[in-house]
Amino acid sequence: MNEEDVKHIHKQKMQKRKEFQDKQVQAADKTKKLLMVYTGTGKGKSTAGFGTILRSLGHGYKVGVVQFIKGAWQTGELAALNRFDNLIRYEVAGEGFTWNTQDRERDIKKAQEAWNFALEMLTDDSYHLILLDELNIVLRYDYLPLEEVLAALGKRQNHVIVTGRNAKPELIVIADLVTEMKLVKHPFREQGVKAQEGIEF
Amino acid sequence: MNEEDVKHIHKQKMQKRKEFQDKQVQAADKTKKLLMVYTGTGKGKSTAGFGTILRSLGHGYKVGVVQFIKGAWQTGELAALNRFDNLIRYEVAGEGFTWNTQDRERDIKKAQEAWNFALEMLTDDSYHLILLDELNIVLRYDYLPLEEVLAALGKRQNHVIVTGRNAKPELIVIADLVTEMKLVKHPFREQGVKAQEGIEF
Repeated sequence: MNEEDVKHIHKQKMQKRKEFQDKQVQAADKTKKLLMVYTGTGKGKSTAGFGTILRSLGHGYKVGVVQFIKGAWQTGELAALNRFDNLIRYEVAGEGFTWNTQDRERDIKKAQEAWNFALEMLTDDSYHLILLDELNIVLRYDYLPLEEVLAALGKRQNHVIVTGRNAKPELIVIADLVTEMKLVKHPFREQGVKAQEGIEF
Repeated sequence: MNEEDVKHIHKQKMQKRKEFQDKQVQAADKTKKLLMVYTGTGKGKSTAGFGTILRSLGHGYKVGVVQFIKGAWQTGELAALNRFDNLIRYEVAGEGFTWNTQDRERDIKKAQEAWNFALEMLTDDSYHLILLDELNIVLRYDYLPLEEVLAALGKRQNHVIVTGRNAKPELIVIADLVTEMKLVKHPFREQGVKAQEGIEF
């Protein structure tokens, strides 16, 4: 095959792909309040949620964030979100990861408090997007009644992102988009590399 | 098992997990300039990269972004990044997705221009974090010499994130963290739902 043939084939291939994509874009004319789930053991679940929140804020939309499990390292996120403090409601619950508290009753109480914040947002359609960060973990430990959560998500008028490992199958069923973050390679913690500012927190 | 037993078992389980985590955190005392790769066909690759950029910006670090494939929908990101314009260098290359141009030579030229921006950043250790968005796609189409890219990544003094489908195996070998975004469920486009502001762009 000479160079001209290669060019021609490339052009044909790209032309076909463009036709397919144009057709798909033209056919898509509906809007829908999306329920998006980021789950799996890999990195990037909360970060992708946080990035989408910033995208909405960039457009000037009002957003809500409920952090069900308080992480130790959130200073970078908070500093970035502070630039948009007139557009964001940010609520944190919990006392660190559950394995730091070792008190199931207290965890349940904290989860319920966080869920009450979430309910206020989910019943207020002025929120364009709501991030329920680590809700999956809380559901996995049965800290909240799954049926109540599913019912509230079913009735909402907002875009919603739910993050955390081990998403419940019932949640996946009602979701519009589910991405599993799969850990392919993560050797650096085992090599003694600590969490670094501006990257992991 | 009565309620007290359940509580006791929960506490023991959480105690063990905490001990393991504490040990791991204590053992990790090194720092390393990380090469992070987000790949796979699922959603959230660029968004996770964008979220990490915002995390660095939140801490006041200087960051660089090179977008190898210009997307049509970037207004939300750009508006958010504009809040930090003194800390960010943002370069865009390309003329939309390759299947919109159908001109391999032009694509290669654009990729090389973008790579030159990337090289300037990768040889400047004042950048805390550099996002090479969709570099994987450019490498997949052989628009850039892989060896040159790997060599520059090997010599750099910055944290780097590379995104895009179909990461080259050679890149995965030298990466510190690889997450595959796996598409579990994504029915809404097929249902005719269009891309929505503040969510997908």
